Amino acid sequence: MKKNEIDYTLYLCTDRELMSTETLEEAVERAIKGGCTVIQLREKNCTSQEFYETAKRIHEITKRFNVPLIINDRVDIALAVDADGVHVGQSDLPAAVVRSIIGGDKIVGVSATNLSEAKQAVLDGADYLGVGAMYQTDTKTDAQTVTMEELKGIRSAVDVPIVVIGGINQKTLDNFKGMGIDGLAVVSAVIAADNIEQAAQDMAAAFRE
Amino acid sequence: MKKNEIDYTLYLCTDRELMSTETLEEAVERAIKGGCTVIQLREKNCTSQEFYETAKRIHEITKRFNVPLIINDRVDIALAVDADGVHVGQSDLPAAVVRSIIGGDKIVGVSATNLSEAKQAVLDGADYLGVGAMYQTDTKTDAQTVTMEELKGIRSAVDVPIVVIGGINQKTLDNFKGMGIDGLAVVSAVIAADNIEQAAQDMAAAFRE
Repeated sequence: MKKNEIDYTLYLCTDRELMSTETLEEAVERAIKGGCTVIQLREKNCTSQEFYETAKRIHEITKRFNVPLIINDRVDIALAVDADGVHVGQSDLPAAVVRSIIGGDKIVGVSATNLSEAKQAVLDGADYLGVGAMYQTDTKTDAQTVTMEELKGIRSAVDVPIVVIGGINQKTLDNFKGMGIDGLAVVSAVIAADNIEQAAQDMAAAFRE
Repeated sequence: MKKNEIDYTLYLCTDRELMSTETLEEAVERAIKGGCTVIQLREKNCTSQEFYETAKRIHEITKRFNVPLIINDRVDIALAVDADGVHVGQSDLPAAVVRSIIGGDKIVGVSATNLSEAKQAVLDGADYLGVGAMYQTDTKTDAQTVTMEELKGIRSAVDVPIVVIGGINQKTLDNFKGMGIDGLAVVSAVIAADNIEQAAQDMAAAFRE
């Protein structure tokens, strides 16, 4: 999978605590069938072995559907399962260090909450940015929010793809029309939905429109 | 530092919660001055960024004294700071995977609680084994203990250096005389001592005797 051909339309961040299905594998497969175009595996509170085993299983699914798998935070897990890339926040390993460890071919995504973080991330070699939180959410209650004005500033300052994150759902996605963003990053709007496939389909369709 | 020339005599695992000094840097420097020959940096409950920043600072110290720095669990942190190696337990990344990520020149250490884990670790490319817990400790209250008989079995089955861990202190170290082990892995016996330097010096001297 070439990293400059990634479709960022509907970018799912997993969250075990929120999923409506019994297994993460099932949730991810349904999300992809519905139209999620990127999967970011996010695991906290587990051992490295568990993270690794989960990542291997999820990677089998994403490979089957030719959808990129991005590992949250843990570059070693990404390397261990030969994932498509890694996503780091501002309190993870610095993006430039991640790039030096993971090499040029893998995707490096970086969370940015303001213009200066966004610019720095691109300088450090980020392939895309996750900008947010756009809204306060239950998933990350301590998240700083980004205004539409700030998002505009970031969009005009950087060339890499931007996905917005934080409170993105069918009600809020219309607010991003004309903002020039490349995709919607979702957590609960898809993974907590009673019908994950339908939720993904609706959001991907609404965004493409 | 060539990995087959490592002196495993007194192998310190750090533990922020137990240290008698104000900073980890101070504890590590004193431990090395006293005679610790290997430092394993173990950080739980912190962000990847904090682990990375700490590892960089500790690595400056270990390099100054030409003592190897081993990172616990996190292969990415080891790569990020170019540490001398990584140590994995049975619930971390599999040793064979660690070896494939980190390359042949770095030290890979593996915790083993029995003969079969010890043999497997060596097959998977371990450069040394941490065998234990030899005694119940406050540091790891859920640790399985290894009997002296089991330690003997492991010693005769594998050729790599063995350090014993778990309840190793000035009272217990005499029990390992004639066991053919290569070093003592300590946590609280050194890092929680009022005089870290003296504690390290006494233990290293007693072991060499």
